[in-house]
Amino acid sequence: MKAFVLKDKIKPGTGTAKLYYEEVETPKAGAGEVVVRLKTAALNRRDVFIRQGLYPGIRVPSIPGSDGAGVVAEIGTDVTGVEIGDEVVINPSIGWGENPDYPDANFSVLGVPINGTYAQYIKIPVENVFPKPKHLTWEEAAALPLGGLTAYRAAVTKGKVKAGETVIIPGIGGGVATLALQIASALGAHVYVTSSSDEKINKAMKLGATGGVNYRQDDWVKQLSIISGGADLAIDSIGGETLKDLIHLAKLGSKIVSFGATLGPVNHLLMPRIFFKQLTIMGTTMGNRNEFIGMLNLFNEHKLKPVVSEVYPLEKVEEAHEQMEAGGHFGKIVLEIPQ
Amino acid sequence: MKAFVLKDKIKPGTGTAKLYYEEVETPKAGAGEVVVRLKTAALNRRDVFIRQGLYPGIRVPSIPGSDGAGVVAEIGTDVTGVEIGDEVVINPSIGWGENPDYPDANFSVLGVPINGTYAQYIKIPVENVFPKPKHLTWEEAAALPLGGLTAYRAAVTKGKVKAGETVIIPGIGGGVATLALQIASALGAHVYVTSSSDEKINKAMKLGATGGVNYRQDDWVKQLSIISGGADLAIDSIGGETLKDLIHLAKLGSKIVSFGATLGPVNHLLMPRIFFKQLTIMGTTMGNRNEFIGMLNLFNEHKLKPVVSEVYPLEKVEEAHEQMEAGGHFGKIVLEIPQ
Repeated sequence: MKAFVLKDKIKPGTGTAKLYYEEVETPKAGAGEVVVRLKTAALNRRDVFIRQGLYPGIRVPSIPGSDGAGVVAEIGTDVTGVEIGDEVVINPSIGWGENPDYPDANFSVLGVPINGTYAQYIKIPVENVFPKPKHLTWEEAAALPLGGLTAYRAAVTKGKVKAGETVIIPGIGGGVATLALQIASALGAHVYVTSSSDEKINKAMKLGATGGVNYRQDDWVKQLSIISGGADLAIDSIGGETLKDLIHLAKLGSKIVSFGATLGPVNHLLMPRIFFKQLTIMGTTMGNRNEFIGMLNLFNEHKLKPVVSEVYPLEKVEEAHEQMEAGGHFGKIVLEIPQ
Repeated sequence: MKAFVLKDKIKPGTGTAKLYYEEVETPKAGAGEVVVRLKTAALNRRDVFIRQGLYPGIRVPSIPGSDGAGVVAEIGTDVTGVEIGDEVVINPSIGWGENPDYPDANFSVLGVPINGTYAQYIKIPVENVFPKPKHLTWEEAAALPLGGLTAYRAAVTKGKVKAGETVIIPGIGGGVATLALQIASALGAHVYVTSSSDEKINKAMKLGATGGVNYRQDDWVKQLSIISGGADLAIDSIGGETLKDLIHLAKLGSKIVSFGATLGPVNHLLMPRIFFKQLTIMGTTMGNRNEFIGMLNLFNEHKLKPVVSEVYPLEKVEEAHEQMEAGGHFGKIVLEIPQ
């Protein structure tokens, strides 16, 4: 089969590893596994960080890619409930384990070091495949798994978002942020977003956001405070100065859920701002099997469709990565796998 | 009556306001209030911060002091369930309101701007007085309220400490930290402490701590990691670099409860350390009426006694404050009120 292979482990700060498009051995399903012929895959920031050496646990050679959807092509021994030809999406959370609060020591995210979805076929434990939501295209289906899972755990499990609450999601446009907006809106929250682009704010409002502000304006925090009235929940992938702005925008006794830090470390964080406001800051990443099921149910029930920003053929994956780094996208960047 | 009065609002960084020992009008109980003739009072860091202008909502003239115990001396109208001569401790949480998660807008801590316990008499809403635990001396009774309430909310409500869990409390010796140690130990947790003083670590172990390390040793974090095996819960009054050390010492999916920041702001906080570990950081301060009752019940049931470090006569309150700032104490600094 054809696949993109990461062969070099890059020292952080020294560049970006090339991905090699090669003929590699097609995987075979072992006990409890299936092989899926992939139709579509999708990008995550993790994929970019891995090429730059900025992620724990990188091993080479291995195939990147955490998100994928396709058709069951082979079934291993000890597998029940799945048939050849089934249309599936893949849960990229591998080996989470029994404790819902945190993953086992041997947990990993699909795609480096476990071979991922930048390939024509993938071998995966049967418990990680789920029926593809019927209302989604193949492109939408690949856009859902990792982002949907992360957003669901952030908004529902951790944030416990409720109808009527006010939710702030800074930096709208990223995959998880956009999926979190859809989840929180579907559950009846009033969602406010920030972006450097008025166009992205408008797109967010079409997806269900109540309002938004452009953070290129000096007084965006004040503006957001006025229009939102403060947040019951913030869902943050930005970190840095933005985390402190979210603390400022937080209502008493409210929550900030953090799953990313694109702005880097937080400096001069005043703990009294957190304890006098009785705030809770919760870190989260990925999610467990029950959360994946909860997420699929929510998307099926509300007929939610993940936003696909661009579709590239698999061969152009490096170009797709450049697009992600440039940051102009809104929603997920998807790869079409050659059949 | 005699009382110490704060008359000057100090600009932060410009010094410490003098407290004036004066004859002031003895308060009279209004509707729903009682007047308590104080036997003992106790110091809190808040009192020091207020004199330095480092606390929100300072108004002058007013009498400092949040902790007190004494005898009911006068009963206002519309008061039931309390009699003249009752021995009581005072809940310094005034007007918390209905929501257990955070206080009402008009909430305040007893002692500036509401007249506090550095006085012979205090006027207080009847719902803020509770029977003095019988196993406590007057000195111990005054050492309990604010610290016990804060520690109870931190360890029990927020931290949900359980038997068999590992709890880390840095900077043992402070009032709340010491009370949190007693609460967590009574509930069956294995508590580890840090201090700059081996003597304080020994005292903590006599109070129930399983172990401790002296943070003057360069590798204290590593040592604490080895002896504790990591924390299910950290209860932090230190902030600064210590908060990052606690993140390092945290087990996956664990909690850090913060109620103080004696080391100041946190710099270069890496959010991925928080979200990859699925950590929750909870800010807390003070507590509500039910938490005060829960705290008293716990102290009565387990016959816990707050540690009294030193006792000063009320007249020497400024000396007592200097002692608190010097930091050599272990437990609470108590004031004896002239009768």
